[in-house]
Amino acid sequence: MSKKNKAFVKEITAMEDDFPQWYTDVVLKSELVDYGTVRGTMIIRPYGYALWENIKNDMDRRIKETGHENLYMPMFMTESQLQKEKDHVEGFAPEVAWITHVGEDKLDERLLIRPTSEVVFGEHFAKIIQSHRDLPKLYNQWANVVRWEKTTRPFLRTSEFLWQEGHTAHATAEEAQEETLKMLDVYADFCEEMLAIPMVKGRKTEKEKFSGAVATYTIESLMHDGKALQSGTSHYLGENFAKVFGITFQDKDGKEQYVNQTSWGLSTRIVGGMIMVHSDNRGLVLPPKVAPTQVIVVPIAQHKEGVLDFADGLVKQLGEIARVKIDASDKMPGWKFNEYEMKGVPIRLEVGPKDIEKGQVVLARRDTGEKTFVELAQLEGMITQMLADIHDNLLNKAQQHLAESTTVVTEWSTFKEQVEKGGFIKAMWCGERECEENIKEETTVTSRCMPFEQEHLSDTCVCCGKKAEHMVYWARAY
Amino acid sequence: MSKKNKAFVKEITAMEDDFPQWYTDVVLKSELVDYGTVRGTMIIRPYGYALWENIKNDMDRRIKETGHENLYMPMFMTESQLQKEKDHVEGFAPEVAWITHVGEDKLDERLLIRPTSEVVFGEHFAKIIQSHRDLPKLYNQWANVVRWEKTTRPFLRTSEFLWQEGHTAHATAEEAQEETLKMLDVYADFCEEMLAIPMVKGRKTEKEKFSGAVATYTIESLMHDGKALQSGTSHYLGENFAKVFGITFQDKDGKEQYVNQTSWGLSTRIVGGMIMVHSDNRGLVLPPKVAPTQVIVVPIAQHKEGVLDFADGLVKQLGEIARVKIDASDKMPGWKFNEYEMKGVPIRLEVGPKDIEKGQVVLARRDTGEKTFVELAQLEGMITQMLADIHDNLLNKAQQHLAESTTVVTEWSTFKEQVEKGGFIKAMWCGERECEENIKEETTVTSRCMPFEQEHLSDTCVCCGKKAEHMVYWARAY
Repeated sequence: MSKKNKAFVKEITAMEDDFPQWYTDVVLKSELVDYGTVRGTMIIRPYGYALWENIKNDMDRRIKETGHENLYMPMFMTESQLQKEKDHVEGFAPEVAWITHVGEDKLDERLLIRPTSEVVFGEHFAKIIQSHRDLPKLYNQWANVVRWEKTTRPFLRTSEFLWQEGHTAHATAEEAQEETLKMLDVYADFCEEMLAIPMVKGRKTEKEKFSGAVATYTIESLMHDGKALQSGTSHYLGENFAKVFGITFQDKDGKEQYVNQTSWGLSTRIVGGMIMVHSDNRGLVLPPKVAPTQVIVVPIAQHKEGVLDFADGLVKQLGEIARVKIDASDKMPGWKFNEYEMKGVPIRLEVGPKDIEKGQVVLARRDTGEKTFVELAQLEGMITQMLADIHDNLLNKAQQHLAESTTVVTEWSTFKEQVEKGGFIKAMWCGERECEENIKEETTVTSRCMPFEQEHLSDTCVCCGKKAEHMVYWARAY
Repeated sequence: MSKKNKAFVKEITAMEDDFPQWYTDVVLKSELVDYGTVRGTMIIRPYGYALWENIKNDMDRRIKETGHENLYMPMFMTESQLQKEKDHVEGFAPEVAWITHVGEDKLDERLLIRPTSEVVFGEHFAKIIQSHRDLPKLYNQWANVVRWEKTTRPFLRTSEFLWQEGHTAHATAEEAQEETLKMLDVYADFCEEMLAIPMVKGRKTEKEKFSGAVATYTIESLMHDGKALQSGTSHYLGENFAKVFGITFQDKDGKEQYVNQTSWGLSTRIVGGMIMVHSDNRGLVLPPKVAPTQVIVVPIAQHKEGVLDFADGLVKQLGEIARVKIDASDKMPGWKFNEYEMKGVPIRLEVGPKDIEKGQVVLARRDTGEKTFVELAQLEGMITQMLADIHDNLLNKAQQHLAESTTVVTEWSTFKEQVEKGGFIKAMWCGERECEENIKEETTVTSRCMPFEQEHLSDTCVCCGKKAEHMVYWARAY
């Protein structure tokens, strides 16, 4: 097949046949990403980056509205810096990229690239915080981080990824705990309001918490294939890093105190989640609020006099209320229909000579495939309404999938069966790490979280039969 | 001195006494930056980052308006990738940070962190460009890059810095050349319109051009101390990278052709330039259009009833037309005056009980120190006007300094004398690299550019006396 023809044929593997291949086909063929030359890296192509910019801009607004300031920290730290917090180094050292030379020179001490920045923020806080008047410090940065993973997949797990990481320091534990939960809510609200993804909110077990945290809170979402995705985390760090880096302040009574800290992050991974929650076998389905193009105008019989002028006029008019583009290339309308379905554009607007005559256009919804004739006088209102409807429909469908794929299990025999069906399993747990490890060993599911909304499903742990302490969401996960 | 008192006393070295120390005092004490723990890195603190965000947002708009798309490329490349373009590797290899290990494992081939991304864009272009229909590709990324420099200084030269790098591919040399010059103009216009910095535009000599380019164009500005700062560059790469990476396309006649490329970058360095062009011995002077806070409201006798309420009302009202903040802390007004002068806030608004009684406030300009009583009815108009006036005044002063510090020299004896006085020297040059190297050797000045506006100052090269080919701007430079 010639290079040219190849570019026009974009088959997608059906998700029922091979889910991982479906995902790869969708992200590559919709031109969201490409693989980088260095193993495990990705190129976020213009279409993917425009999507990320929409996510970033809205999240940045929410972060600023909750009183945080952006800054930028160096991406390097020294090996001895990393080693100060024992749990932290144990958690991250195996995935760290080490710099040993610059130019021709060997460094006296090797450096690493941040896998996360608690360490550099910790040292900075120690320097700039002296008094209770300096608190709280509510900081955030947008940055690239590096974690060298064995198995990688675009967006979901890449050696280098983009994220925001919030780092805050407070005078009291209560304030820091409040901040931790506030930012978890910011994440969950964002995912629901902007990405149409419902989240299960809860606390991670000791085994699954962030290396160096006192407690980790998480938002967990459910993919089409029944696997869970950890979509954002918020950590209460207590005084752990404060003690190691000497971050102290004089309180109102002149007493030296350690600060209490939090950190929280949301990354390009969420794009992968969005795809695996909404997209289908024809390609991407993008939530309207972050879609780079919300309406694609496809002129029909565009060679006929007046069609392109009319279509251009619509683009200009609708540009005031939505992100609108036109494809006036000389490709066939059928090709264009496929292309923008593949790219997940929420609404396609078709307009040809007959439509112009009748004073109407056709709107086709990406999510339902539904086609509607709309009179020009109603067009703006209809577009606004339809974009809102598409968001609601995506959210409803995802909520329904989440509900249908969440099963209560109280017996160990049923647990093992249920695992094979996928989805979340709600089951009681004794609270013992050993038991959690057994469950993982025997079934490959991990504890996703202890949800805030606890239910008493039974008196005993689903695995060991000891007294139940927590209700836990379990699932296979990305 | 106790920690607490130290924080209140922020002396700045006079620039006449020690210019580098003045600069360091200003950037640290205004809290734009701090030093990172790893040598040569900087922490861009919230005040500095807010400034950078204003720069970035406006530049991003200009880049998009000229048809470019943002994307994100991996920061890693392999050693063999870098080595493909001979001049390019020679130019950058000495400053490169090398990654040899990840976790416990030694890499088969060591990786480097991008010092610039021609190589990764080159490989990507080769993959995605097939036909003339795929051209032009007009790409840009905002990213961090690493160049390990021997001598570093915040903003001006740091191991890691932030920038945007544009990379474009075109069907013809003419188109690429046009793009190169267009983006140079975008930079120059931005610096003048947003940062109030006048630029000399021109072409770099062969010796000073970018490693791997056919031609490099530059904008050069003049600092308070008479040294020049290369403030942004735009490179015409011709087919150099296309040949190395095999970036070809089928033209309209079905013939295989190499693309012609450009690249262009502007970095956090420009913040350093802005400081050294406008600031003074009392601290920062920020150009209003990028100042994080444009108006700082300082309540006088704020304990008296109604003052704080009144001041808060002003903040709300003026927030519609400018970036306004209030300092209602319990520090003395005098301390606040100093603090916001140090931080370069363009306008200080003072309001106390007597002002409220009279229906007026006081506006103090940071650039001139001028104080004006303004009636409340005139306040909004006055603020808008004053911000515009401050911009114009800063630009005028910088233009005047540039004009006064640019000297025509036609004799070698005078050249050497003039160098000691600082500023730009306009002088003729034979075009020989050897002669350019001699000039640098003997006087430490470098050729800054061959300006687009060439003048015929004399028939002979100022150094060697051979036939003059170009008029050149010479200066000591950062």
